Amino acid sequence: MPDIVVLTERELRQCVSLDLPVVDAIEEAFRALATKRVAMPPILRLDIPDHNGEVDVKTAYVPGLSSFAIMVSPGFFDNPKLGLPSLNGLMILFSARTGLVEALLLDNGYLTDIRTAAAGAVAARHLAPARVETLGILGAGAQARLQAQAAHLVRSFGRALVWSRDPAKAMACAADLSSALGVAAEAVKDAAAVIRSSELVVTTTPARQPILQEGWLHPGLHITAMGSDAEEKNEIEPAAIAHADRFICDRRGQSLRLGELHHAVACGAVAENFPAVEIGDVIAGKNQGRSTDAEITICDLTGTGVQDTAIATLAFARARAGGLGTTIRS
Amino acid sequence: MPDIVVLTERELRQCVSLDLPVVDAIEEAFRALATKRVAMPPILRLDIPDHNGEVDVKTAYVPGLSSFAIMVSPGFFDNPKLGLPSLNGLMILFSARTGLVEALLLDNGYLTDIRTAAAGAVAARHLAPARVETLGILGAGAQARLQAQAAHLVRSFGRALVWSRDPAKAMACAADLSSALGVAAEAVKDAAAVIRSSELVVTTTPARQPILQEGWLHPGLHITAMGSDAEEKNEIEPAAIAHADRFICDRRGQSLRLGELHHAVACGAVAENFPAVEIGDVIAGKNQGRSTDAEITICDLTGTGVQDTAIATLAFARARAGGLGTTIRS
Repeated sequence: MPDIVVLTERELRQCVSLDLPVVDAIEEAFRALATKRVAMPPILRLDIPDHNGEVDVKTAYVPGLSSFAIMVSPGFFDNPKLGLPSLNGLMILFSARTGLVEALLLDNGYLTDIRTAAAGAVAARHLAPARVETLGILGAGAQARLQAQAAHLVRSFGRALVWSRDPAKAMACAADLSSALGVAAEAVKDAAAVIRSSELVVTTTPARQPILQEGWLHPGLHITAMGSDAEEKNEIEPAAIAHADRFICDRRGQSLRLGELHHAVACGAVAENFPAVEIGDVIAGKNQGRSTDAEITICDLTGTGVQDTAIATLAFARARAGGLGTTIRS
Repeated sequence: MPDIVVLTERELRQCVSLDLPVVDAIEEAFRALATKRVAMPPILRLDIPDHNGEVDVKTAYVPGLSSFAIMVSPGFFDNPKLGLPSLNGLMILFSARTGLVEALLLDNGYLTDIRTAAAGAVAARHLAPARVETLGILGAGAQARLQAQAAHLVRSFGRALVWSRDPAKAMACAADLSSALGVAAEAVKDAAAVIRSSELVVTTTPARQPILQEGWLHPGLHITAMGSDAEEKNEIEPAAIAHADRFICDRRGQSLRLGELHHAVACGAVAENFPAVEIGDVIAGKNQGRSTDAEITICDLTGTGVQDTAIATLAFARARAGGLGTTIRS
């Protein structure tokens, strides 16, 4: 059997960071979803309520890529009490031709964070107004920082406004963005003010009750909703979904099951056959994204297996080129 | 983050073989399925028709076990043309308390083979007549050999009869069984004669058209059907399922979806609410298995995530005790 390469988080951080080639790779993955015979089964989910834990397994085969990944992401929410992170995980990379394991990517969720942020950049590239002066961020965690960095790769905004339930965290996040991106960043106590002052908003919270209200929408606004990836989560008021000129998502079925569309349909704000456009169709030119700078657009990203396959394939190629990893003779 | 142990197939073969403690561990897993709040989501399946490949992902959380496994088993059926095995795979072992990866078991399907055979032993222990003189085996591959070995752990038969579509393979398999188990083993060209002469039969073929016919059944026969694990597979004539005194399976929903019950229900031989007893219920004494030596019983095993979690947990404990594996500092 061929050798297997094991890559640690430290090694993966050495060879993969959030940059334009990564954004392009994720964009290609979404394009493939719209144009190729991609195989992407529904997410496997294991719940372990005894330990406040859950595990998601995602995968996708993308024709044309030499490998496919299986991504396993456990979330165990009592871990911080033990001094351990809640989220971790790994990716397994297989040869698409033989199904043999090529590499084990022990990323502890790092590659997932990067591919999630890169999807935000793809959404901003295709859906945000051409000029963005101000970026608004709801939430102040790791993904809030990464989303701001991702947005900055495709829209060179000069100002960032950060809102979080915890004002101290919002201030820390704003300080980080200011130094990382060289923009004027500030924490804002009123979420409505963040939305009203921004042309591009990214929501990154685990909210179970909507934060972003319909009344805050304004012409020329694009919102990317990153937070919801489970039935009970909801960041955007359903009426806002109905109000927007265009609603885009990564995968329609997933948005309906565990994204923002789920709640909008459940409460009757929109019909189940609501015209949600998939981002891959926009990228491939098969469907319209934003058509004027004045439109209001909302994009719901729930996370897809094609992103995992794309980032894992790219990471392995870079690690190989850099001579990184431990080889296991199997 | 804690260290991760990587175990190769060679190391796993050193510490795990098909023995009674392994059979007991698998029996406990089935008992847990019947008595504990086991979480076992449906199998995730990825099809890659471009390369005649498929991947199954199984998992289960068993309360009381310190770990849970995710088993990934690719089957790429053009591999033999490339000089590679069709089946391979690996298991990932996670701490049940924290979700952190404990070990990567690069077993290339070895542990899956062992836990599958061990389930056959559990079925024979609980369902075969007390005295088995003759074992019948349909199929002559690796699992045919392992199933005979497994059955011999719990029923000390003196004779084995092997049928295969390919008589040469049946002869080779019989020769192997004779030397491995010290029994009188012979290849038989007529499958009906194998069934008629045996008290215990194990079917291990990938048949898509039933081989074992209703007319061959006789009092005091137990059949374990191992082969079917997909919608299109079928080893047992549906009328035989209806004819048996008792039908047992590992997981009712799986047997209905991708096991022998699937075809029996589809053709109307039995009703969808047919009383299929789960083997865990028999082990736990919650339901009746065989009640007399004269009954005809059929057990359909499709493979379950609890078996993977049980064998992976046991393998890791033995490997640790034996100082095996490569430690990766993550």
